[in-house]
Formats: sequence, structure tokens, C-alpha cells
Amino acid sequence: MLTKEQITEWLKQLQDAICNALEQADDKGGIAGTGRFKEDSWERQEGGGGRTRVIEHGNILEKGGVNFSAVHGVVPLFLKEDTAGSGTETFYATGVSIVLHPKSPMVPIIHMNVRYFEMSNGTWWFGGGIDLTPHYVNKDDARFFHTALKTACDKHAPNYYPDFKKWADDYFFITHRNETRGIGGIFFDKLDKSTGKSKEELFAFLQSVGNAFAPTYTALMLKNKDLPYTDKHKQWQLMRRGRYVEFNLVYDKGTKFGLETNGRIESILMSLPETAGWFYNHVPAVNSEEEKTLAYLKKGINWI
Amino acid sequence: MLTKEQITEWLKQLQDAICNALEQADDKGGIAGTGRFKEDSWERQEGGGGRTRVIEHGNILEKGGVNFSAVHGVVPLFLKEDTAGSGTETFYATGVSIVLHPKSPMVPIIHMNVRYFEMSNGTWWFGGGIDLTPHYVNKDDARFFHTALKTACDKHAPNYYPDFKKWADDYFFITHRNETRGIGGIFFDKLDKSTGKSKEELFAFLQSVGNAFAPTYTALMLKNKDLPYTDKHKQWQLMRRGRYVEFNLVYDKGTKFGLETNGRIESILMSLPETAGWFYNHVPAVNSEEEKTLAYLKKGINWI
Repeated sequence: MLTKEQITEWLKQLQDAICNALEQADDKGGIAGTGRFKEDSWERQEGGGGRTRVIEHGNILEKGGVNFSAVHGVVPLFLKEDTAGSGTETFYATGVSIVLHPKSPMVPIIHMNVRYFEMSNGTWWFGGGIDLTPHYVNKDDARFFHTALKTACDKHAPNYYPDFKKWADDYFFITHRNETRGIGGIFFDKLDKSTGKSKEELFAFLQSVGNAFAPTYTALMLKNKDLPYTDKHKQWQLMRRGRYVEFNLVYDKGTKFGLETNGRIESILMSLPETAGWFYNHVPAVNSEEEKTLAYLKKGINWI
Repeated sequence: MLTKEQITEWLKQLQDAICNALEQADDKGGIAGTGRFKEDSWERQEGGGGRTRVIEHGNILEKGGVNFSAVHGVVPLFLKEDTAGSGTETFYATGVSIVLHPKSPMVPIIHMNVRYFEMSNGTWWFGGGIDLTPHYVNKDDARFFHTALKTACDKHAPNYYPDFKKWADDYFFITHRNETRGIGGIFFDKLDKSTGKSKEELFAFLQSVGNAFAPTYTALMLKNKDLPYTDKHKQWQLMRRGRYVEFNLVYDKGTKFGLETNGRIESILMSLPETAGWFYNHVPAVNSEEEKTLAYLKKGINWI
């Protein structure tokens, strides 16, 4: 029987493996040793804690975090309805959360979250997702990224990729802008026994998603790191980062959960870029790369 | 009997007067004519519209908006409970909203909102507020600012300044950071006949608040515009602007109302600075100006 301790241990190892892979890739962008994760261990007053690992001013990665946490306690009030709780049960939540903001506007922003949740009443589920936010959409990169996710999904069930790709389109959506955050990816939540899969089977799927992250993103880092760019591209990057900030602060459920459960603020908001910008009523020039990118920020595009 | 048309007309004139005063003050910071408001008139599909006026790259003002709007329609669902509506009534809401982000970190950010709301069932109220967000708190400026607000309030009722100052401390509060947005000011909402004042008396108070804005803020612009600053101060400004973004996107009710009523996004989000920044776990040096400023971001300080 798969225990929460086993899942927790695997998530810690995933954090280690991903940090190592990212540091090695970042070394290839300039002087080796420039980009190194720094760890802050923290404890949550109400129970549990985490290992926040942040990288700043690497060769390729400007700012990012690869965070592990495992928190527990009494189920917060605002979750009660969701979890059909009776009011006295406790919860245990563990996961790895990643957001990486590269220096170059030619390298995409990426996000991944893989998590496990259980309650003392026997309820448990897995959730997570990966999505890519290129400052400039490149169709080859988009196909490569989505193919990697499809491959990870298809090992477990034929409906996972199409279903979770649609879920990502709907979730990573900035309603007030009527645009997607980026080119999407996969998103899934509350995968439990009602799916017809065992806990072991669902965990195996979560592992496939987590293990797909490092090879996929480091390939995109290395492929794009030397592309030339100008101040115009940097300004556009600031605007796209501004949209990223809007999504995370207005819509993101993980951020909301963190803020409302007295999470560690600096760990939660490591997802925000070092700089972001807002330029009033900016409209890209006709047929520009910026306009082409905006046209791709729609739901339902088949990238493969 | 005071009508919504009269209130609306006064708000339009207030927008004009404030834009003129700000342009004249900005001219004194360099080349005259550099900072000029540009107007975008817009219409709301569900009823009404507005005049958005944005200034960018002035001598003193880097980015800001002085927006007038007057919208009407069926009362939105999420307001129903608040307004004890029966489901068929219509609303009319008009106001002026201002946020100004100066170029220099030595000049404070300012916000003002004055608004009037009425419903077809006869309900009406006034609301608004002004608050100041210095990147570096200067006690003399804080006293000057709060004294100007107290003077405007005291003409109408002795409890207005203390009550609305406390309300501002509670409203302009970034809960997840456990800090106020700045040095506060005044905030008030739903001032109606239950206050014991007539509509005319409450409108006269709103006018005093609105009229206090331009002389108070232009004085702070001109007093501080030539103070020297370095890259260190600019970096701190980016961080304080980051907190401003966090407040506006996570807590601000005006922003929330705008996003949920299909408001004009570029007008609502003109409150966001041109650039903002997030630096992981930044802690100011002991006894630095930055540390002193943080110590002032608390509720309940008597600035006068």
C-alpha cells in the first residue's frame, strides 16, 4: 500500500533531480557555477514546512524556484465544502512547485506543479500540471513541448492528454484579457479512485509528468539561449511577465491557497518575475512577431 | 433636489481640473509640454462609459491615470446581497479614479477615488478615499498630507477624519505581507442617509475630498522632484511598486468590481506601474532608509 511518506520522499528526490538538471543546463549558457539554487528550509506554524530553492541571476535563468513542501493541519474552512469534511478532520498536502523566468525573451517561462492531498477521513487525490509561456510563440517548440506531455500521458491512459490539455486551456486563462497565459500544457486535479485507477496507478502517472519536466525544459533552454534579441523584445517580455503576474495574483488557485493558509509568502510569490511591466493600451504592430504571438494565445489549438 | 446628473457633471469638471493642475505641476519638472494626458473615450456594452486620461513619460509623472466613468445597467449578481436588491433593479455608478506613479522614488505614489452609486429602488450612497504610498516615508510629508485630509474632513463632521483614517488603515492593508500599502489616508464607503446627513451634505463632503487632491499632491511633487537618488533607490521603488501591484490585484475592490463587471481593462489596470519588481526574500539593511520605511507601514500611526 502506497503511503504518504513514500510519495513525499519521491517528491523530495524529484526536487533534487530537477535542480541538478537545471543547474547543469544553466552552466551551458555562460560561466559554469553562475546559476545555483539556494535553499531556505521553513516550518509552518500550523504544521509541516518545506524546502524553497530559488535561483537568481543564472546564465539563462534570471529568477525561479523549485519548491518542495509538505504541510498538514486542520482542514481550512474555505476547503470544507470542496472536501465534504465534517469539521474535525486533518489534511496532509505535499508537492513540488516550479516557476522559471529566463533572462532572454527568446526562452519560454515554464511552470509545473505535482501534488498529493489526503485527509484523515480517507479521502486522497493527486493533482498537477505543466504549462509553457513563451514570450514569442515558436510552433516547433510548442509541438515539441506538447508531444513530450502527450508521451508522458499516453503511457497511462489514452484520454489523459486530450482531457488534461483541455483542462489546461481552461485553467491557464486570463479571463479579463480573454487570452490564455501561454500555449497551455496539461492540468489535472482531484484524480482519485473515482477515475477507476488505483492510487499506485495514479502515482505512476504523476511520476511520469514530474520526470518529463527536466529533459523537456532544459532542451528548450539550450535550443533558444543564444538567439539574438533587442530592447524591443525585452520590453515585450516585460509585458508578457505582467500578464503572468496578473494570472498568478488574480486566478491561480495554488497562490490563493497559499495566501489563505498562512503559507510562506516568499515561497509562494517566487513565481513572480524579477521585473514586469504595464504599458497603457499597447497594441502590437500589424504582422509583427508580437501580434502573431497574441493570435496564438487562444484555447483549443492543436499544437501537435 | 440633488440629481445624479449634477453629481456626474461635477465629477467631470473635477477630472478636468485635476488633469490641468497635474500637467502644470509636471511642466515645472523639466521641459514644459512633456507630460500631457491623452484621452480615450469608451462605451460599456451593458450601458454607460467613460473618459480615461492617461499620462506617460512626463517630467515627474512616469505613468498615471485620471479616469472618469458613469456606468449603468442591471445590478450585477455579486452585488445583490450587498444592496438588498430584489433582482430587477438597475444601478448607476459614477466616479473619478486616480493613480499616479512618479518617476523618482523620492516622490510618493498617490491614489484617489470619489464615487456615487444609486439604484432604481431609491438606494444611494457616496464612497471614496485618498491614500499616499511613499517609496520612502518622510514624516513631514506624511504630516502635511494627513493634515490636508483632516482639514477637508473637519469642515463636515469631527468624526470623519478619525473614522475614515482608521478605515483607510484597515482597507489599504496587504494582509499576506502584514503591512499597509503606504501611510494611509482616508477611506469611506456607503455614506447614505443612515449617517444622519442629507445627500447634499454628503456630496459637499465628497467635493471637499476631491478638491483637496490637486493642491496636496502637486505640492508633494514639487517639493520632492529634485531630490537626488541612485540605482539602489530605484530598485527599492521597483519593490514597493511590486507591493502596489499585489494590493491592487489581490485586494482592491474597485479593481475587482471592474474585472467582474466587464469593465474596460486598460482603464482599470492603468493603476499598475510601468515597471515593478520582485526580489526573493529581500531584507533591508539594519538602520537603512528602507528599513525605516518598512517600520512605518503599520496601522494606527498618528501622522499629525
